[in-house]
Amino acid sequence: MALLFLSKGDDPVKWSAALRVHLPDLDIRVWPETGNIEDIEAAMVWMHPPGELKRYPKLRLILSLGAGVNHVLDDPDLPPGVPIARMVDPGLTAGMVEYAVAGVLRYHRNFDVYERFQRESRWKKLPTPDTARRGIGVLGLGEIGGACAQALSAFGFAVAGWSRTPKSLEGVTGYFGAEGLKPFLARTDILLCVLPLTAATRGIINRELLAALPKGAFVINIARGGHVVDRDLIASLDSGHIAGALLDVFEPEPLPSDHPYWHHPKVTLTPHIASLTNPETAVLPIVENLKRLKSGAPLLNLVDRVSGY
Amino acid sequence: MALLFLSKGDDPVKWSAALRVHLPDLDIRVWPETGNIEDIEAAMVWMHPPGELKRYPKLRLILSLGAGVNHVLDDPDLPPGVPIARMVDPGLTAGMVEYAVAGVLRYHRNFDVYERFQRESRWKKLPTPDTARRGIGVLGLGEIGGACAQALSAFGFAVAGWSRTPKSLEGVTGYFGAEGLKPFLARTDILLCVLPLTAATRGIINRELLAALPKGAFVINIARGGHVVDRDLIASLDSGHIAGALLDVFEPEPLPSDHPYWHHPKVTLTPHIASLTNPETAVLPIVENLKRLKSGAPLLNLVDRVSGY
Repeated sequence: MALLFLSKGDDPVKWSAALRVHLPDLDIRVWPETGNIEDIEAAMVWMHPPGELKRYPKLRLILSLGAGVNHVLDDPDLPPGVPIARMVDPGLTAGMVEYAVAGVLRYHRNFDVYERFQRESRWKKLPTPDTARRGIGVLGLGEIGGACAQALSAFGFAVAGWSRTPKSLEGVTGYFGAEGLKPFLARTDILLCVLPLTAATRGIINRELLAALPKGAFVINIARGGHVVDRDLIASLDSGHIAGALLDVFEPEPLPSDHPYWHHPKVTLTPHIASLTNPETAVLPIVENLKRLKSGAPLLNLVDRVSGY
Repeated sequence: MALLFLSKGDDPVKWSAALRVHLPDLDIRVWPETGNIEDIEAAMVWMHPPGELKRYPKLRLILSLGAGVNHVLDDPDLPPGVPIARMVDPGLTAGMVEYAVAGVLRYHRNFDVYERFQRESRWKKLPTPDTARRGIGVLGLGEIGGACAQALSAFGFAVAGWSRTPKSLEGVTGYFGAEGLKPFLARTDILLCVLPLTAATRGIINRELLAALPKGAFVINIARGGHVVDRDLIASLDSGHIAGALLDVFEPEPLPSDHPYWHHPKVTLTPHIASLTNPETAVLPIVENLKRLKSGAPLLNLVDRVSGY
């Protein structure tokens, strides 16, 4: 059995070293140096070229190098029936929480405005709403969204979460389903998107959603670029309805150098760095799945291809 | 008995309303409309004109509107023997923690560099040190410093604290006294100053201290401007030894419009807004002290004029 490593964005040396701590004899092939394709039974992938995975006749497991698996499912020629496992890494969740807290506090405490004041040599204090009255809305209450919601709740923010199906989290007011979206948005001053990208969530941050937020609300997206209808977000920033947007993810990536986000005065952007996957901790569930694949035991962290996550 | 409200920076209407919730009959005089100065037995003060407080012959209690009391003690004509109470407000501590966490995460996750990259339309990911290996050093482990240290420890940072006398806080490595300062600095990647400003701490962030930090360290000051020797900090930023500084406090304030901090590319500054005192919660210990003053019971939160805090 051989494992194929297929990513242009991740370091195969680091990942191989981390895997071999636990599986010293593992046969790792770094794409495109695949050797005999009949040896490949598992593949670790990030943004593989569409159609590539169907070339491996013995492939029995696809391991995503990202927490979101839309980059796998987007392949129209994905081999049917091969199980897909998402990345589950406590370090990745912690990295997303760091970014989310940094972003929320930045808007909450007006750091974006003070940066402008500094450029103007302007000493001026701004009022800050009480933390307990500042509505934070987390779109998506999966492993990462739930962790972000609870970390923000610990600061004393009024945190609510929205999910497809009802979820209960301590300190987080829960909204769910299509009917829950409008009331959730109406009480949200800072919106944090941590949804999986699926057919149902693509383009969810559109004109209608943005209009349902209170005037002066902020938007933070650390999920996928496909969640945002860019022209609608830019229009709502330009009209003044949305006060600012912090964006880590885009479609496509890298963000084209002539995209209006780059120099929009109300947009802060980072190059898809919110999630930090640490190979040392992230290989543990991967190693477990490779062992299970060999022994025939049930695989972990599998994705439902229909719901998309 | 009358209470004098003496601050150019705080809103007397808000504070009076909050006080009268608990003491509806309180006689409040808003400086400079003092009425008969013989009525004034207590004064709430922030940055009063030196010599002003000795004008009140019946003054028996000075209540600081700031957590630090150096602005009171700096008055060379401060009436001797009048007790001074510092501000103790849970909302104030929470506001300092918000600012400290926002500042540390900003440097930890390279948001300062990404802002520059955005201006250059540059999509480039930077390595981020593991949170568990990132040394955060908190100068001062009083009520506010201790709360900052513990909030940062909850993110998994390697947090240490330095204080004049030994203190024990869960999740925080303690250093103390003159001998503890150098080893504390040697393991600090991001320094957070939350010290009281006293004769012993004035100018503590000087050339020698900055040189004892590792190359590439960051400095965050949310205590008092007098802790920093400005020319030493600017020299260490210019030499590249210190990578960046986030400053909320200055000497004097407002920061003069021609000060080099305003446009230094490695300095981010805010206009003394880290602490947020909420009159609604902050009046509770003040009301308690006014009642005690009337009944002759021991006063709370008193400052030691010798140690300066």
